[in-house]
Amino acid sequence: MRISEMSGKECRELLAHEGAGRLGCALENQPYIVPIYFVAEGDSLFCFATVGQKIEWMRANPRVCIQADEIRSRDEWKSVVVTGRYEELPDDAEHEQVRKHAISLFSRRDAWWMGAYAADEIRKHAGDPIPVIFCVHMKQITGLRAAPDAGQTALDIAQQKW
Amino acid sequence: MRISEMSGKECRELLAHEGAGRLGCALENQPYIVPIYFVAEGDSLFCFATVGQKIEWMRANPRVCIQADEIRSRDEWKSVVVTGRYEELPDDAEHEQVRKHAISLFSRRDAWWMGAYAADEIRKHAGDPIPVIFCVHMKQITGLRAAPDAGQTALDIAQQKW
Repeated sequence: MRISEMSGKECRELLAHEGAGRLGCALENQPYIVPIYFVAEGDSLFCFATVGQKIEWMRANPRVCIQADEIRSRDEWKSVVVTGRYEELPDDAEHEQVRKHAISLFSRRDAWWMGAYAADEIRKHAGDPIPVIFCVHMKQITGLRAAPDAGQTALDIAQQKW
Repeated sequence: MRISEMSGKECRELLAHEGAGRLGCALENQPYIVPIYFVAEGDSLFCFATVGQKIEWMRANPRVCIQADEIRSRDEWKSVVVTGRYEELPDDAEHEQVRKHAISLFSRRDAWWMGAYAADEIRKHAGDPIPVIFCVHMKQITGLRAAPDAGQTALDIAQQKW
């Protein structure tokens, strides 16, 4: 297996195509990961959730990470990691246009991840479900691609050392 | 879709069966996510990597998160989130037995994730690949399960509010 870095353009293409991955947030240096649905546009990833632990943590600390991948086989895959900043898009006059735009982007996609994970939080806050739309402003995007070859695997190398 | 919490036993069964997921670490409250291979045993997840950003970050801050899931369809899935503490198992007399045990666990499994992601770091540190074995001591395990039904999705509910 041969591993190489993906270009910025290739990383963005994966994000645009995948639309689902994992969101990492952190509070007092404790990381927390949840599955997330997103729509990529320019330097932004638009996301949706209801109020819950991840939203509370991101309000307290806007530093976030999103990881997404495409796995074809054990030696043919791509993985992209984004670090960025959380910005909530509240339901007010200032954010009306960007919220409408985000909702139009969501509605063009199959929103099953978004619905799935929001559902639980809605259940927990059954009396007061509060939909939150937010944006992750991407600061750094890196990606790795694996392609098959006849070479030695990392495990082979490591096992020789053990 | 109906969402319910998984029992601790069900969460552990998923971890034992899956063996691959995502590891989250954090430095100065910046989260970082990478794919990870693990072997679950008792309250421990045994993992393998070579020295790189995630190991450096976990040495500085041992608070970590591991997320794993089984997705059958848009309305039938399970997702488990573990928070825990990183402990490195260095190559010394004190850790010899536990390292041997971990390696025997790794060798019983298909180690492709482990090999795949370690490969890149070995490539980057080509002159000095340093295999690191570590354990995540699980502190909290939670899981959610979705099952199909004819109910309204969270997206439906949210869209009525927008």
